[in-house]
Amino acid sequence: MNPEAVAQLRAGNPRVVARAISAVERGGAEAREIIAAIFRHTGRAHIIGVTGAPGTGKSTLVNEFAKHYRQRGQRVGIVAVDPTSPFSGGAILGDRLRMQDLSGDSGVFIRSMATRGAFGGLAAATSDAVKVLDAAGFEIVLVETVGAGQNEVEIAANAHTTIVVEAPGMGDDIQAIKAGIMEIADVLIVNKADHDEVSATIAALEMNLNLKPKAENDWRPPVLKTIATTGEGVADAVAWIGKHRAYLEANNLMQARERARFRAELEMVVQREMMARLLRGVNGTKIERLVEQIAARKMDVYQAAETLIG
Amino acid sequence: MNPEAVAQLRAGNPRVVARAISAVERGGAEAREIIAAIFRHTGRAHIIGVTGAPGTGKSTLVNEFAKHYRQRGQRVGIVAVDPTSPFSGGAILGDRLRMQDLSGDSGVFIRSMATRGAFGGLAAATSDAVKVLDAAGFEIVLVETVGAGQNEVEIAANAHTTIVVEAPGMGDDIQAIKAGIMEIADVLIVNKADHDEVSATIAALEMNLNLKPKAENDWRPPVLKTIATTGEGVADAVAWIGKHRAYLEANNLMQARERARFRAELEMVVQREMMARLLRGVNGTKIERLVEQIAARKMDVYQAAETLIG
Repeated sequence: MNPEAVAQLRAGNPRVVARAISAVERGGAEAREIIAAIFRHTGRAHIIGVTGAPGTGKSTLVNEFAKHYRQRGQRVGIVAVDPTSPFSGGAILGDRLRMQDLSGDSGVFIRSMATRGAFGGLAAATSDAVKVLDAAGFEIVLVETVGAGQNEVEIAANAHTTIVVEAPGMGDDIQAIKAGIMEIADVLIVNKADHDEVSATIAALEMNLNLKPKAENDWRPPVLKTIATTGEGVADAVAWIGKHRAYLEANNLMQARERARFRAELEMVVQREMMARLLRGVNGTKIERLVEQIAARKMDVYQAAETLIG
Repeated sequence: MNPEAVAQLRAGNPRVVARAISAVERGGAEAREIIAAIFRHTGRAHIIGVTGAPGTGKSTLVNEFAKHYRQRGQRVGIVAVDPTSPFSGGAILGDRLRMQDLSGDSGVFIRSMATRGAFGGLAAATSDAVKVLDAAGFEIVLVETVGAGQNEVEIAANAHTTIVVEAPGMGDDIQAIKAGIMEIADVLIVNKADHDEVSATIAALEMNLNLKPKAENDWRPPVLKTIATTGEGVADAVAWIGKHRAYLEANNLMQARERARFRAELEMVVQREMMARLLRGVNGTKIERLVEQIAARKMDVYQAAETLIG
């Protein structure tokens, strides 16, 4: 990436930003070159992860957050991690619907990531897209992940502030509790708070929080109610996000969060790179032959792995 | 594992099976030794993956499947993958509730896997537990995974027959479509079919299936209705699982599915092993120093990874 392009990216030129994100999504040498050129300009954005099961309305909520930050004059980037299948078309449709609401505003940049395949591909593409938006001067970067899976949860947890969204009305199943993602939450939100069972859901979340031992100065995640479709409770949620940031700053935890994120990224990149090098060094036939040997029960998977590495 | 223990495991001795699964869950040298001893005795079980978002009732459904197979005199192993947080205690409670229903029957073996931490740990432990149950003569092995995450979905997809469970009543959100997991389904089940909106959910799933181009002899996943709490529709679902197996056998696809599973396992084991070797060779201080360099924007993550590997 030449200095002129870096300057345009830093000025927030939407085309340059879009092209850079497409490149980091594809990965490879160009992605690395872009990150090398822009990385020194990162570190100003407040990165906010938002996660929760499908059906909790978190996309609508993320849009409402974006509108709120825009009203305050802050520039907002949204990275929606949506490992939707190519044929369902969910990501694209979702993007279009969202665009209608926030389009024409150059202070907002929305991008869905749908990279699949190679291990860590999605997580790497997402963190690099966040870096691009950070370097491009977006003060708020919202990273939204669907589902309750380990990968997806980790992506949302790699933020300064992590929000877990819940919806009432699924009987006695509190999804965040069942999926074991409560411990990553800095802010818990029960969206669709106009539905029945909202108080039962809040009570269950509060009870679960009380089970966790806390030191005196630990952050206690608030349990908030929102109705994203009407905007109700959104201002309060944004205020709590601000309080969390102030807490992190007062306790020198912004840097600690950032370092934890970089450590996780480093491990991931190292794993991918080592795997890529191994696969370049081995021809496909060898792997196929090993799989045949396993299928014939002549060796097990661990013995085959040993053959491949050793 | 000595020949006597292998013989007892193959005879289905529940204590020996339980101990072997605990060992593969811990991983390490003992796990590898067990797999080396038993792997040649695997390959007879029909491995059935069951996945879906929290709240779809898939645990109850899996129990109903188990009862059905038991009535036919088949031995059933259940591996429930539940990365629930240590402090929520969901996995343990869930296990106890399930045990009440199926306990005292030596033809059923249920195990929850809750391993977290190292990359691939859960997936490796799960596939090794399946091998133990297979070698122990369980003809049906049900692998249940919570959530819509990529890892969890892949665990359920590494089966002969994969079932995706959906529940109606979440408005216009069809979780399986949103989470992009429809393409792994051999059988789609809308559970809680006594709730409203069941026909809308079925219609949306059918429409989504119709979008996918199919060759003439491709398997077309049926969309079935069940009410797991009353057992309604379960016999039909079990019959469809049997039809899918017959389809795989008639088209020589059982082996193809198995090979795909072994290939995925091999890649995963190789990645973990390489990472473990790298971490053994590097002292922690070096990684911390690199993270400091990244935090100071003196190098980016890719450059730090290069330093570590090169």
